[in-house]
Amino acid sequence: MSTEKNLDALLAVDIQPLLRALSAELPADRLSIEPATCWAYGMDNSRLHHAAQLVVFPDRHDEVATLVRLARQHRIPITPRGRGTGTAGGSVPLHGGVVVVMDRMNRVLEFRPEDRLIRVEAGIINAEVQRIVGEAGFFWPPDPTSNALCTIGGNLGCNAAGPHAVKYGTTRENVLGLTAVAGTGDTVKAGTQTTKGVVGYDLTRLFIGSEGTLGIITEATLKLTPLPDAIRLMRVFFRDMHAASAAVSRLMNQPATPSAIEFIDGNALNLMRQFSDRNSALDIPPEAGALLMIEIDGLAESLDGQIQKIRAAAEGDPGHVMAPISLSVATTKAEIAALWSARKALSPTLRHVAPKKINEDVVVPVSRIPTLIQAIDQSAARHGITIVNFGHAGNGNIHVNLLIDPENPGQMAAAEEALGEIFTTVLALDGTLSGEHGVGAVKRDYVRAEIPPVNLALMHGIKRVFDPEGIMNPGKKLPAPNP
Amino acid sequence: MSTEKNLDALLAVDIQPLLRALSAELPADRLSIEPATCWAYGMDNSRLHHAAQLVVFPDRHDEVATLVRLARQHRIPITPRGRGTGTAGGSVPLHGGVVVVMDRMNRVLEFRPEDRLIRVEAGIINAEVQRIVGEAGFFWPPDPTSNALCTIGGNLGCNAAGPHAVKYGTTRENVLGLTAVAGTGDTVKAGTQTTKGVVGYDLTRLFIGSEGTLGIITEATLKLTPLPDAIRLMRVFFRDMHAASAAVSRLMNQPATPSAIEFIDGNALNLMRQFSDRNSALDIPPEAGALLMIEIDGLAESLDGQIQKIRAAAEGDPGHVMAPISLSVATTKAEIAALWSARKALSPTLRHVAPKKINEDVVVPVSRIPTLIQAIDQSAARHGITIVNFGHAGNGNIHVNLLIDPENPGQMAAAEEALGEIFTTVLALDGTLSGEHGVGAVKRDYVRAEIPPVNLALMHGIKRVFDPEGIMNPGKKLPAPNP
Repeated sequence: MSTEKNLDALLAVDIQPLLRALSAELPADRLSIEPATCWAYGMDNSRLHHAAQLVVFPDRHDEVATLVRLARQHRIPITPRGRGTGTAGGSVPLHGGVVVVMDRMNRVLEFRPEDRLIRVEAGIINAEVQRIVGEAGFFWPPDPTSNALCTIGGNLGCNAAGPHAVKYGTTRENVLGLTAVAGTGDTVKAGTQTTKGVVGYDLTRLFIGSEGTLGIITEATLKLTPLPDAIRLMRVFFRDMHAASAAVSRLMNQPATPSAIEFIDGNALNLMRQFSDRNSALDIPPEAGALLMIEIDGLAESLDGQIQKIRAAAEGDPGHVMAPISLSVATTKAEIAALWSARKALSPTLRHVAPKKINEDVVVPVSRIPTLIQAIDQSAARHGITIVNFGHAGNGNIHVNLLIDPENPGQMAAAEEALGEIFTTVLALDGTLSGEHGVGAVKRDYVRAEIPPVNLALMHGIKRVFDPEGIMNPGKKLPAPNP
Repeated sequence: MSTEKNLDALLAVDIQPLLRALSAELPADRLSIEPATCWAYGMDNSRLHHAAQLVVFPDRHDEVATLVRLARQHRIPITPRGRGTGTAGGSVPLHGGVVVVMDRMNRVLEFRPEDRLIRVEAGIINAEVQRIVGEAGFFWPPDPTSNALCTIGGNLGCNAAGPHAVKYGTTRENVLGLTAVAGTGDTVKAGTQTTKGVVGYDLTRLFIGSEGTLGIITEATLKLTPLPDAIRLMRVFFRDMHAASAAVSRLMNQPATPSAIEFIDGNALNLMRQFSDRNSALDIPPEAGALLMIEIDGLAESLDGQIQKIRAAAEGDPGHVMAPISLSVATTKAEIAALWSARKALSPTLRHVAPKKINEDVVVPVSRIPTLIQAIDQSAARHGITIVNFGHAGNGNIHVNLLIDPENPGQMAAAEEALGEIFTTVLALDGTLSGEHGVGAVKRDYVRAEIPPVNLALMHGIKRVFDPEGIMNPGKKLPAPNP
């Protein structure tokens, strides 16, 4: 907290000089100091809130460059924002100042299917990109659950990827290049329009996952992948998570890589039994304590062969006590859509059943999922709280949801303790504290547990190169440097 | 050149104080100042040469850390070296000082097929990694032509990838994490053991492709891919490169992605007709002016379907003047190996037929290959030199070989002019000057043509954070900062 105060002291609180300077260079409709607007753009899906002092709606790259140059002169903090779907508070202006809303920068600049690329402005919605490239037979593999709403700029900022990363990689593996404005005010042209390139340092990947702390991404050149001919969805119920986790290890240790391996634990299945109309789509057996949803895609001719291998891996030794309870394969588009819809409804359902959820997205190596799940169960039992787990098992990316009543101070403290234990286990298993939600504000205090001090010092060094005044998304991503 | 002199003045020339300090901390067999040894480790496949003053053979990470710490204190330059297969002079100690030979650090530290990863020391040979993981049913996709000899550390340093990047990505897409010693002497632990992760900045990708200018990579955690069930190799001859290039665009604009699309132009085919015993494997029709070698891999069940789609794309409109002259598919291991061997023999053959070759590895977006080839043909004709092109067409990665006689000063000058024209065309086509050979010493003067000054300044800023004394591989990768 003392760091935040120091920073506040460093940064100007009077927005008027910057506003005057911006008014001289940008059209009036780019700027708002309306209290209602400043309030509205002070929140995101983390439920943190701090009002902006000025909201800027740039229409093109040059306006972003003008904004950063002037904000640097006036030492005013800048918080870039896509659609605020992030859960880590990355787009909440903790120190006031400017929120930059990228909504208007949503154009397609260039689409070249023959080069498997599309160049877009950062404010375009993920689903809109999918629609456009889909018409030409392509898709862009990163598709977080929020893809109907989240922006490409946000996807890059957090390296968000969603369920298909197990086969197609994360955002950083699916971007060729980008344009950004660094905190210096300089325009950065990073990467290439080609899949190979080694001239200069890799500034593309440096910006990806930097959560707006080095600058503002304004454009991205996305690497496209041909749409599969056909998709199937296998649904496999297990007695418990240990049986399901063992199957995940078997699935990853054979040649037919599924396009998604999602898992849902017993607590989550119970919620679905109780609350979800979509339960019917899933048809959950009463004895089921875990579910794997395994998506298989590819050329139509390959599906039977893939399903045969994947079924064998999912089943393991059929006589074994950990063998699946049931296994079925959905083949029609409608059936597959209904199952995905049931999976995607989980997160909103959790909001209904508990006044507050703490939603983490830890990652461990796939073979260590059972150990992590066991440790989570033990923490939940020890502290008397309900923890619901689901997520992207093929990447070891587990969404751990602690359901708590914040009115109950004992429960809040218990949740914090449980969380600390879970994080310790994740790191002991060579895992990482965030797969794709980002560090933002909410995980910032935990970063030192994962990253050694000398490496943090190098990262702060990079931060100073790109953002010497410390105006870019202050209070996020990196813990404060040692004094 | 003035920069190099400035740098020499900055860096110490007396190796004795460092040698004494190292002798106190490292076993004697780690150090050599034998003139023959210092001479031998002064060259690489670029044919540049500058003798080292001291050669160090570290046996483990801590010894590398000791070396860098002491070299920093004594301001002695360090040039890291794998097996010297690089063609850009990246491992030639242009300023003398220390060459660090990574050969002894060739251990497998951890192999976990169930997590699809292997953790190795940087000095291990690429082919050795392939052998080990192959026994468990996996491969590591990057496999440069020199894979029998080149090290994993060198692959990471140059982001070298070879022919399979079109389907499986380059080195940066196939590394989970790494350990390095920065030029500060600090140990860097970058990345994770997981396929997702967004805590901290992406130091993994920053080191990949940095060519030893930020520090020395000592370990890497490689992301493994299951071996395909089966492989086929399609051989398609065309009248000329324009017809072949049009086929490459069609191949990339359909859903069955080949695992390699290699091309060989008419001049290269002529050399193979004249000089290669392996011509028989290729069976080159007399009227052929270009060849595509298209590899298809995957589940056995998928191959027929893939070949059908790929054949259709390769053929285009069969009645068209640009349609293939002939198309055949090799199915046996022996036949496929013979064809790859013919392709791999090309580069050594060029060494026989010309006293000197200038070997570039430019990249352009796939659809722009025909424009580039046309410009190269025009430059060759204008300057009266022979240029032979082959390479990884699926990535637009063209190996441009200028065959010249260095004894003929007119021809050297003509080659330099032709090269300048080719580079200008590559950049005008949104390409890049090096796909995987790296910048090293030989392309350093051209970097300013590709990277804008403000971005170079940011890269120099990063360099100063990781290597404040400028001891790491001086004279490589980045052009000197502006005074």
